[in-house]
Order: sequence, then structure tokens, then C-alpha cells
Amino acid sequence: MKHINIFIICLVSVTAVSLQEAGAVEFRKGAPVTIHIDSSEWEGVAMAAENLACDFERVTGVKAVFGDDAVITAGTLGHSDIASFLTQDEKAQLEGRREMYLMKVDDDSIIIAGSDMRGTIYGIYSLSEKIGVSPWYWWADVPVRQYDHIKIENGTFTDGEPAVQYRGIFLNDEAPCLTGWVKNTFGTDYGGHEFYAKVFELLLRLKANFMWPAMWGWSFYADDPENSRLAATMGIIMGTSHHEPMARNHQEWVRRRDEYGIWDYRTNRQVIDRFFTKGMERARDNEDLITIGMRGDGDTAMGGREGHDDEYVPNDRDNMKLLENIISNQRKIIRKVTGKPADQRPQVWALYKEVQRFYELGLKVPDDVTILLSDDNWGDVRKLPDERERQRKGGWGMYYHVDYVGAPRNSKWLNVTPIQNLWEQMQLTYAYGVDKLWVLNVGDLKPMEYPISLFLDMAWNPSSFDASNLLDHTRGWCAVQFGEEQADEAARILNLYSKYSGRTTAEMMDCRTFDLASGEFSSVCDEWLKLETEALRQFLSLEPQQRDAYRQLILFPVQALSNLYEMYYSQAMNLDLAARGDDAANYWADNVERCFARDAELMRQYNKEMSAGKWDGMMTQKHIGYFSWNDNFPADRLPRTERVESFEGGCSFPADSRGFTAIEAEHYFSAGASEHTRWTVIPYMGRTLSAVALMPYTESTDGAALRYRFELPEGTGSVKVHVIVKSTLAFNGSGHHYKVSLGDASQTVCFNERLNENPENIYSVYYPTVARRVVESIVELPARGGWNEIVISPEDPGIVFEKIVIDYGGYRDSFLFGDESLLTKAPQH
Amino acid sequence: MKHINIFIICLVSVTAVSLQEAGAVEFRKGAPVTIHIDSSEWEGVAMAAENLACDFERVTGVKAVFGDDAVITAGTLGHSDIASFLTQDEKAQLEGRREMYLMKVDDDSIIIAGSDMRGTIYGIYSLSEKIGVSPWYWWADVPVRQYDHIKIENGTFTDGEPAVQYRGIFLNDEAPCLTGWVKNTFGTDYGGHEFYAKVFELLLRLKANFMWPAMWGWSFYADDPENSRLAATMGIIMGTSHHEPMARNHQEWVRRRDEYGIWDYRTNRQVIDRFFTKGMERARDNEDLITIGMRGDGDTAMGGREGHDDEYVPNDRDNMKLLENIISNQRKIIRKVTGKPADQRPQVWALYKEVQRFYELGLKVPDDVTILLSDDNWGDVRKLPDERERQRKGGWGMYYHVDYVGAPRNSKWLNVTPIQNLWEQMQLTYAYGVDKLWVLNVGDLKPMEYPISLFLDMAWNPSSFDASNLLDHTRGWCAVQFGEEQADEAARILNLYSKYSGRTTAEMMDCRTFDLASGEFSSVCDEWLKLETEALRQFLSLEPQQRDAYRQLILFPVQALSNLYEMYYSQAMNLDLAARGDDAANYWADNVERCFARDAELMRQYNKEMSAGKWDGMMTQKHIGYFSWNDNFPADRLPRTERVESFEGGCSFPADSRGFTAIEAEHYFSAGASEHTRWTVIPYMGRTLSAVALMPYTESTDGAALRYRFELPEGTGSVKVHVIVKSTLAFNGSGHHYKVSLGDASQTVCFNERLNENPENIYSVYYPTVARRVVESIVELPARGGWNEIVISPEDPGIVFEKIVIDYGGYRDSFLFGDESLLTKAPQH
Repeated sequence: MKHINIFIICLVSVTAVSLQEAGAVEFRKGAPVTIHIDSSEWEGVAMAAENLACDFERVTGVKAVFGDDAVITAGTLGHSDIASFLTQDEKAQLEGRREMYLMKVDDDSIIIAGSDMRGTIYGIYSLSEKIGVSPWYWWADVPVRQYDHIKIENGTFTDGEPAVQYRGIFLNDEAPCLTGWVKNTFGTDYGGHEFYAKVFELLLRLKANFMWPAMWGWSFYADDPENSRLAATMGIIMGTSHHEPMARNHQEWVRRRDEYGIWDYRTNRQVIDRFFTKGMERARDNEDLITIGMRGDGDTAMGGREGHDDEYVPNDRDNMKLLENIISNQRKIIRKVTGKPADQRPQVWALYKEVQRFYELGLKVPDDVTILLSDDNWGDVRKLPDERERQRKGGWGMYYHVDYVGAPRNSKWLNVTPIQNLWEQMQLTYAYGVDKLWVLNVGDLKPMEYPISLFLDMAWNPSSFDASNLLDHTRGWCAVQFGEEQADEAARILNLYSKYSGRTTAEMMDCRTFDLASGEFSSVCDEWLKLETEALRQFLSLEPQQRDAYRQLILFPVQALSNLYEMYYSQAMNLDLAARGDDAANYWADNVERCFARDAELMRQYNKEMSAGKWDGMMTQKHIGYFSWNDNFPADRLPRTERVESFEGGCSFPADSRGFTAIEAEHYFSAGASEHTRWTVIPYMGRTLSAVALMPYTESTDGAALRYRFELPEGTGSVKVHVIVKSTLAFNGSGHHYKVSLGDASQTVCFNERLNENPENIYSVYYPTVARRVVESIVELPARGGWNEIVISPEDPGIVFEKIVIDYGGYRDSFLFGDESLLTKAPQH
Repeated sequence: MKHINIFIICLVSVTAVSLQEAGAVEFRKGAPVTIHIDSSEWEGVAMAAENLACDFERVTGVKAVFGDDAVITAGTLGHSDIASFLTQDEKAQLEGRREMYLMKVDDDSIIIAGSDMRGTIYGIYSLSEKIGVSPWYWWADVPVRQYDHIKIENGTFTDGEPAVQYRGIFLNDEAPCLTGWVKNTFGTDYGGHEFYAKVFELLLRLKANFMWPAMWGWSFYADDPENSRLAATMGIIMGTSHHEPMARNHQEWVRRRDEYGIWDYRTNRQVIDRFFTKGMERARDNEDLITIGMRGDGDTAMGGREGHDDEYVPNDRDNMKLLENIISNQRKIIRKVTGKPADQRPQVWALYKEVQRFYELGLKVPDDVTILLSDDNWGDVRKLPDERERQRKGGWGMYYHVDYVGAPRNSKWLNVTPIQNLWEQMQLTYAYGVDKLWVLNVGDLKPMEYPISLFLDMAWNPSSFDASNLLDHTRGWCAVQFGEEQADEAARILNLYSKYSGRTTAEMMDCRTFDLASGEFSSVCDEWLKLETEALRQFLSLEPQQRDAYRQLILFPVQALSNLYEMYYSQAMNLDLAARGDDAANYWADNVERCFARDAELMRQYNKEMSAGKWDGMMTQKHIGYFSWNDNFPADRLPRTERVESFEGGCSFPADSRGFTAIEAEHYFSAGASEHTRWTVIPYMGRTLSAVALMPYTESTDGAALRYRFELPEGTGSVKVHVIVKSTLAFNGSGHHYKVSLGDASQTVCFNERLNENPENIYSVYYPTVARRVVESIVELPARGGWNEIVISPEDPGIVFEKIVIDYGGYRDSFLFGDESLLTKAPQH
């Protein structure tokens, strides 16, 4: 942003702060504001002013009125009397500029002057944002804070001219989410003008000027004739997507295919030319940007079949010749319809997929046509013009994706574009002279709110961003949505969300994506969990009216992916444990089911509860169960798990590469009880999994023993056996004993004879031990490589066993006595 | 619980469900209930009935009234006409029983008959709980749900007799929390009768009958004469703590020490005997349990100094002789004051600390005296009677702790007692015949809510608990506090909280408690984080009026410990990184400060925001910065951290025992840029830490290089260098190259020449790679053991470096290319 002069906005919630000397315009709660718009002004400006009037109601409680004795006057040079409010110098600053405004604040008036219609509109919405209305107030339910006083200090302000001429979005891949939501919200089976009015308003508030409408099943032009008129009136320049030439929606062809015949210029040229001509006639009098060129039927190569690109046999040379012919004819139609040379009407030719290869092979298009480059759908640009190419008159554009349908997998569900990736490639794009058209594929629009803002802000002024200040943008955006106090934390979470979600997509991910054995998988899950905790903490710290916005912009995506990661991790754990016969696998199988159900529940909350159900249908994208890029499966699919039969004992521990084997007491190979007793697992007891005790404590322990089986590496000569028991005191007066045997050797341990308050014990042994709540005793016994069995026999009742560590050289002290070693489990016969 | 007959309560929120045939008593919203209490009834019963009347208001909206034509009639055998409502058989069931009630529900009446005063009271509160009022409704703000209809099916019900005769709590260590809260709430500098009325009510609702009052700075008997009268009236049997003999508060001596002189029976016997006599006179006509014996001045050994137990030189034989003499004199006083043999008045002698040793050394007390054993303050019992000892007439008691002040460290802040530990030791205690008195040290009472319930429920019927059904109690308790739908998850979290918090206490913990290097420390932090996430999720799923209860019973303790673990982990990370000169240490130092501040903020929320500030002062316990058991430090102390000066480069990587060295691109040893460029760190970019690129991309890369220093184990002959870059496409048409050099050898890599949509690449290379967003290239180069330097030189602009892995035998593929190896950092000179 370029400050021509000092411009300070001071939002005071209770009483006005007296600003030193400087004059200011002040708005007060409940006091109506008057806006003046000249009668000769563009209708689009009047519509923006009407929105501003409503914004004042959101902030002060009273809608602004229109009249002559106005505080706010907005107008476009040449379309109103606004020039009379400007100095010669100010006029000179505006004249001939593109989409620029000046805002003059002077004690009792605010003058917004635009160099053209959109300049004025952007100025108006700029004032909206400054009184506290987020561009996302409707599309993300960002609450508008009411103030008693708002002061806007004297000064003159402008955002300058945009760096990129056409800046906009592409609503794409709009089923089921956008389609369903529009049906639920507007009652239409298509995107009609009520819907597009909301989209256009958002774009203008974001200082965009361009869009490609949704075109999977919808036809912008044909569905609702008001659509096109509304765009022109409000100031949005429409285009058609990269494979829809001559201002026609592909659906216009599809719906009348019986009548039109085949979409093949080789064989059906006359019909297609007529089809093109009608599009051009319809677009003749507006600003719409004409897409030229041609691809096959649908979003596929000429000669290919939509959805079957992998079967396509390229036929480049023939296609190139045909394409040159097509473009030549399209230009003739343009000339004929507009009555002017073709180069007078802006056109764009998209180098998408195979079309880029045609260009590289030498296919030429007229110099006035903008060539639209693209990324690889994953955020890396495929081609940039070299110095010579940059000279072309029509310039260059970039078609960039934050939503994608195609190979290897769709990314339609959540935003998966790291902030840094978008910035890095778009700054590269701009550095290579691509500044005619930037268009962003945003899927259903939600939940791509932040990438849309970032992309469009970069399109306005790419040079203001660099690696060190990039996240200031994120923070500033969060401040607009959640307030200054919440901005740092919200931005931190949003940035980490974008980073983590960019590692792989929900659609690509499965239980093998991350490495289980090295702990990588649990690590990434824990990162998500931490992020979710932090998002939940922040959620609770917000005022209730902020929570819907926070949920959709931050909390939901974080929770959804945190849960998905837990689900696939649980699947990985399940399959791994099941393969070893460990019935702990069943816990993880249950957890897969819990996560799968929670995924659906989170989606349901987004659709049905958040914002009182305003976004019903917007979050219905499948994302679990892909096996190809195509999402033609009926519903999310529960990941496969395996169940293992549960039984007691039977655990064996293969040698552990860490150099020690850690065994939870309940994972014995076999257990023999004494008369009237039972080896009893006490779930959750102790530092890690559980504890095991011979109960009841009033019976004799004669003959009772726990046996543990483990393998030792060849060459082992002895082991240190660490037995960890609960710090039971010698309540029997004589202490508690157990015997540890391995082969022929054995040793008896009394672990609590000094756990008393006698002077010689109290400070040295007793206090430190009782506070640890466990006693670790170490017994060294001879052992040999291969399979061994250790026998632990209690000699007094009341001993609670927690863990056994067999150290053959690698163990180092740790509070939890090491993660348990991997076990295999098989019934004893 | 023992069901004499079918008893079903059916809570119906909207319409009454017609129960098959069975009759029932029904209460309706808004319809007043009448209760009958005979005029000759105990006052304590009338008080409980008054509370029941208020409970009806909580549930039906209308307070119950008292009158003759009553639905509910409650009374005590021998103190009312209640017998006239019972059959001969029912009377026989009650007569001679201790604290037992029968509840008869019969179409239009509920009869509650008690064998004695407390039996009737327990019956009354049992009805309260059954209409949906938690015993914790006031002490934990558990909301009472209103119903349109409540039906209680016909039948007769009883809880039977309690297994343990005296069951209660000890309010202890009551400063600063309880003391501050009482001051804020009741305006008194002591616990007065308004405060104790709330405590007594809670105890009776929990079917307890006994307590030791707080005695640090308060004097139950002296502070407010109403206290003792109220206890007797309401039905609570008072005792004095283990070192306050003869029904006197230690404060009564302390406050008049000038007058009384020294607390030494050897030299000041007459004064002390008079002191004892006054206590006995005061207690003559109530049920209070008389503590006998004597310890030193305050909670210390005779001859010791309070707070200086470690300096105490034992003098056992002399003290034993003195103690026998003291007890003999105390018994004389009892006989004299009561006018009956001493064995007619229940007495207790506590074997606490050194006193247990006196017993073991042979000190004898009369057979009618109850001997009170104790745990080690950490939940393990020190001694249990053998079969012979069990025969003593006075029986045995257990003094058990869930709050503790003493060595090695206090545990005064939060509950740190695992559910399993409490159960395991108390079932042991009961199995060894200790059933006369169970008293639980509960500190400030809050936040020990669940252990109090569990302990008192076990005291009523210990045999009903076993290892497999223990957590049913937790679940049932959660169902009472949070409702059936929330009970499973709340109980799961409460159990895990108790387990994790029992590993070590907040006061014991520091940055060395868990092992950092093995990942143990981060693992336990992640467990806490997961628990916090789950608690937060549940918190949000609750109805708003349930949230205060959930916060105090579950969410706050989880969040407080989760944060504390993160703080000490951050400190461990800080000190570890700082020792290696890594300025990442500073992030962790900041995080220690954030966590420290958050700890205070969580406490503030508990005191000031939760329940609208009702618990102001209750959560003010210091818990960070202990260096001895004593908490005589002015305030929580920020853990020590170290700051490291930040500078670019200088990173060296010692050989990594994993067999590979993983290096984040920004951790170079040195970096040389080309003209007009700068090596730019892009924070957060890429899969792990960040990315590094030579910017701007429009300048030549001539001469630019990144250098990485690392050590190789002796014997290394070659290494595989994995270079991970962002999957930048060949936007320049010719591809992007970098050179990797090690010593004299080098190799040039073009990592993106096949990243295009040409048919031979698109499905095999392009799609899989772009979706991964990184390209990993592997270069094998000769190398030698010792320090090496690798040089990476970009030959085209636009390459973004993410990570370098030097594999000398141990690397296995993983998505994030391995955790970074440990580095040391030193400025280059």
C-alpha cells in the first residue's frame, strides 16, 4: 500500500480519544451517515455505496442514507461531479490510471474519487474495511464489531494501481459442495444471479476484477441471463475457462449435443463456428475477456475422452495445424461481430496440459493475444516466458490452483497450499513478467478463504511481499477476521496448518505415507494434535460471536486433518500389531472406526451447526478411500483393519535392536497362580500400560510365577534384569520378596526392606523411593543367545509388578523404563 | 449396594413413560412435594430434609413443603413415629443396625426410615441423588437438570450398613488456598460455622460421618463455638488430627503459648493436663472421637522442631516411656470427666511417622483404643495388623493422603493419586481388617473431588470393588456429574489424568525428570497434549451450564499439567540446544516463558472466571520452583533458561549414531551468494523446518554455493548424499541444475528435466512427483572418516533447497527424511 499522506484510523470502543491537533472525520454509534453518489454515476458504484451504507449499519447500528449534504462523497472521474472536490494535482494523479482511487479525509468530509468505475468501487470498499467490515463478513461470517466512535484522521490515501491487470478466481469442481450448498441456500440447481451477486461483492471487496464461473454442470450465460448483466453492472469482467472458447460455456454445447453434433472442428466446423459466433455476439458490449483456442470435449485433449487422459494417444502435429486454423477462424468471428480489428478485443489463449506442448513445438498465436500459462495443479508453474517472449503485446497470464481434480489425486476437500509455496511461485511468476492475468482455481470457494485473499493481494502488489514479511500478511488477515489481540496466534496456527496440510493431501494419504517404525508417523500426528489443542484453546478464548468464523477459517480444517492423521496412524498401528498377533491391534481398529465416525461428525457440524446451518452442503466432499484420482466411489470408505482374537499370555519378544527388551508385566508368556489366587491385571496401574498382582493378598503365593519369553542376540553372556514393582511398603513387617530365575540361576530380591522411616533409611531411601512410587531392582544373571525364559515368583502376597527390562547392553535409565519392545503373540498349546 | 427389592428410577425429560404395571411415585415440574418430619425427630434429620426440599426446587422448580399429608415421610426409629409405616420384618431389618436406612416406595408415598440419625439422613440424601442432585452440586457446581416428570418405581431399597465405622476427611495444609477462599467467600479469617455447614452437608451427602478440621492456622473449637454444636447437630463426628490430643486444636495452645509455656510433658505436665481436661469437658456430651497420645510441638516428633525433622536425633526409649505415661494420664482425665470407665469413650491413637516405630518397639496402649495406621503420604500403607493384632477390641484405622506437605516434596496443588493406587491399597487395608476409621487427608478439599468420592464409597463397601470393575465407579461418578452420554469419555479422561499425574508430581518435576535424548520427554508431553485435546473436545460438546463443573473436575487439571509438562520439556530443549550453541534454544526459552505465563493465566481463570469467581483463592498454590519440600519461596519461579546469540551459518554436525546425518538446508556452515543475490531462508517452507533459495530468481547464480560440515565415522569410504529440493518445474525450458561436491569429487544433478507432461513422463514421473512437492536426488561420492564439507552450487536460479541427508549406511526412506541430526553451532572466524 502506498500512503500519499498520513492516514490513521482510530477505533475507539468506549470514548473518543482526542487526537493531537489533527482533524478527523468521526462517526458515532446511532448517528446516521449520509453518502452522496451522483446520479450520473455508474450503477456499479451505486451498488457498492449501498453496501457501504449497510456496513455502517453493522458498525454504528444505523444504515447510512443517501443525500446531498453528505459526509461521504464517492464518484468516478468523467461520470460524476467528483472532480470538483479534487485539486488539479489530485486529478492529475488519477487521470488515465487503471482502477485507482484517492480517498481524501478532511475534518467533516470523505471524498472517494476513482479513475474509473472499479477505482471508485475499490475506494468505497476500502472505507468499509477501515470501519471494521471484513471482506469476508458474509462468506466467512466474520462478525462486525460495533463502536461508539470511529475516527478517521485527515489525510489522503490510495492503494495505487494494480500490478496485474486481470485478477480473479475460477469456481471449479463445484460438485457436490458448492452445487449442494447453492441449492440449499438459493433454491436453484445452478448458480443464479443472487448467488453470483455474493461472489462479485466478495471479489470487489478483495479488489479483484475477474472471474471464470463454475462450469461443471452449470452454464453461467445460459442458466440465468441476469448473471452476465449483473457482472457487467457490478464491474466484474467475466471469462470462460481455459477450454471454453469464445465466451461460451461448455454446458451450452453439452445440453444441446443432440442438435449440435460432435465437438470436433475437423468434422463439425460450421456448427461450432455458429456456436462461437453466438458467444461473441452476446459478449460484444461488455468487458468480458474472450478465451480462444480449443481442447477436446470437456477438459481433455482434442481427440481424447474426458476422464480418460491416460488412454490418449497424442497426435500433436495434426492438432497444432487444426488449432492454428481454429484460432484464425475465431479471430475472424471476433472481427465480424465487433466490427473492429480482432486485436482490439482482449483475448486469452491458455497453455493448459498438452496445449503448452503445442506452443513449445512452435504453434503461434497473434501477438495481441494474452497467453495464459499454468501451474502443474500442485502449485509449481510449468513455464515462464524468457526475455524475448516477454515482449509480446498481449502479455502473459497465470492460471494457478489451490483446488484440483485430476491425477494423481484430487485435492478438493481442504486447502493444502502452503502460504510459502503460493508466494514463492507467484513472486517468481511476476518476476518473469507475467502480469496480464492471474486467475486462481478455488474449487467451491470455501474453504479456500485465505489463499484467495493472499493470491489477490499479491496480484495487486506482488513486489510488497518477501520471504521475511510474508507472514505479516497472514497476521494482518487474521487481525481483520479475529481482531488484533487474537491475530498473532491465529496467524501462527493458520501458517502451521497450511504447512502441515501441504505435506500431503487427505486424498493422497494412507496408512503407509509416513514411517511407523522410526516414530515418524506418531510424530506428525502429534504435531497435528498440538495444533488442534492450540486452536481449541484459542477458540475458547474468543468471544462467542467470533467462533463461527474461527471454526470455518481455522478450527475445522485443523480438526479435520488432525483426525484424519490419527485415523491413518491408527490403521498403520492396527495392521502392524495384527501381523504380530497382538490383540492391542483391536484397540487401534476401534480407533480407526472412532476417527472415521468423527470425520463425518465434524463435517456434519460444519454443514448443520456452524453459523446455524448457513453452509449446509458446503462440506460434503469425499476424501477417504481414493484408489485413483477419480472420486467416483459412493461415499467415504472405512479403512481396512484386522481384528485379533484376545487371550491371556502367549507373548514372545524377539531380540530388540536397541540392546534391551522392555516388557509390560501383563505381557507374560504364561502365568501360574497359587491356590485360591488369580494373577490379576490392574489396567492403567503404574507408569505405563498396567500392573499385575496375585490376588487376593490374603492368600499364600506358594508356587505362583510369571514367565516371560524373549530372544537374546547371539553372543550374549549375561543380562541385567530390571524388575519394576510398585513401591509397596513392608506392611507385613518383614518385607516383600520375589525370586527371579533364568535357566539354572536365580536370585531373590527383597525390594522394600529399607522402605521405612528408620533414621538410617528415611532420607536416603524412603522419601526418594515413595515419591517415585516404583522400585526398580536389578538382578544380573547368566544367559545365552536365542530364546530364553525368565521366571518371576512372588514369595509374599501384595507385590504389584509393572515392567521387566532385560538389558543386554543397550539400556539407559529412563523414567518410563523404555517403550515396550515389539512382541508376537500366539496361543500356548 | 444391596438391593432388597426392585428399585428403578426413571428420569423422563419430556413426557412420562408408562411403566408396565409397576406402580411408582411421580413428581411433576411445578407441583409442590410435601415432606413429613416428626416433631420429635433429630434436628440433623430436619436439616437434611430441608436440603431435600431445596433439591426438589432445583429439579422441579418448586421447593418442597413440610406438612402432614406428605408423599415423603422420613424418620428415625425411636425418635419419631416412623415405625408405624414399617412392617415387623422391616423394623427387624433396621433395629440395632448402624447408619442404615430403608426406603419404601409405594405408589403414592416414599418412606425413609433410619436405624439412627445418620441412617435417616443418608436415606434422605440418597433420594436427593436419585432425583438428580449430585452430592457435588455446590462444591463442584454440578448443574441440576430440571425434569417435567420423575418417576420412582415401587420397591424397597437400602444401602445396608457401612463397612467402616468412622469414614471421613481431614482438611489440611489449608493455606493459602482454602484459607484465602474462605476469607473471600465467608469473610472470616478462620473456618466458621457457615463454611463448615457446607463441608458437613457434602460429607453427609457422600455418606461420611467423620472429619478432622483444618488446623494450620485455624482452631475449630476456639474460632467459632457454633462449629462444634453444628457438627453434633448435623451428625458429623469430629476428631482432632493425629498430633492434637484430647479434643484440643493445636492452635489453642499456640495462641496462648505465653500463658501455657512449653509443650513438653516432661516439664510442663500440669498445664498440659489442664489443657487436656478442658478439651475433654467440652467434648463430653457429643460423639467426638478422642485422639490420645502426643507428638512434639506441631506436626513433629517429641523433642523435634517443626519443619526440621531432618535435624531430629531420636530418643525412642525415653519418648516411649513418656508416651505410656501420657496415655495413662489422658485415660484418667477421660474417666474423670465422663464419669465412666475410659474404655466407654472411643479413642484413637495415631501411628504417624516415628510413633509407628514406638509401637513396633513394643509401646502398648489399652485394647479399647483404636490404633490409627497411616500411609507413607504417597499412597502406600506403612503397616497392617497381623492376625493376632487384628483381635484388639479398639480395632484399626487408616490415615491416607491425597494431599501432602513434607519431604521429599509437597503435593498440595493438584490431585496426583491414580485411581488404581488408591483402590489397590485401600482394598489391601480392608483385607487386613482395618475397618474402624478411615480418614483421608484432602488438603483444601478442592481439587480432590473424585478421590474423596472414591475413598468414601470404598469406606462404605470396599468389597464391591475389584480390578475389573474399578473404573465403573469412575464412570458412574462422571455420569452423576456430567450425564450418561458424557460419562464414558469423561471417565476415560479422568482416569488417564489420574494415571499420568501420578507418575510424578508438579512439585517433584523438573527438566531432568524424563529422558530427552530417547524421545521419552516429548512422548509424555504428547500424551498430555492428546488428553488436553480430548478434554477440550468434550468441553465443547457439553451444554454451557455443565462447563464450570467440567472445568474444575477435569479440564483445568488436565490443562494445568499439560502446560507444566510443556514448560519443563521446553526448558530441557532450551538447555540442550544452548549447550550446543544452537540458537533454536531461544525459541524454547520463549516457550518456557509462554508456558509459565499460561500457568498463571489458567490459575487466574480458575479463581476469577470459572463459576463467576465462586472459587476465588482456591487455586493459588505455588508449584514451580521447589528446591526442598518446603514451599517457603515467595512465588512460582520461572525456570532458568539460556539465550544464544543468533547468527547465520556456523553449523557443524557430529557423526550421528543412526548412520546418517540429516541437515535442514538453513543449517549450513557457510553460504556464498552471487552478485546481486542473497541466500534467503524461507521460514516454514517445505516438509520440515524451512527452505533456502538464492534470490531474486532473475539474477545469475554464478559462484553461489551452500557448504555443509559434518563428521563421518572412521572407516567410511563413500556416502550417499540425498538432496531434497522443492519440485520446482523446468519453467526455464531447460531444467534446473545444481552441483554437489565433496572433496575432489562432484556430480551435477538436473532434478526436473523430466517433470513435464510429455507422454513418456506424465504418468511415470510428473504426476507422482508434483504431488509429492519435493524432488529427492541421490549422489554417491567418495568420502573419509572425520570432518567433511559438502558444497552445493546452484547452476540455475529458482532452486529451493529443503534438506540434505548424508547416508553412511543407516538411512531408510521416510517421508520427512529423518529428524534432523544434532548440531553444534559456532561463529565462523
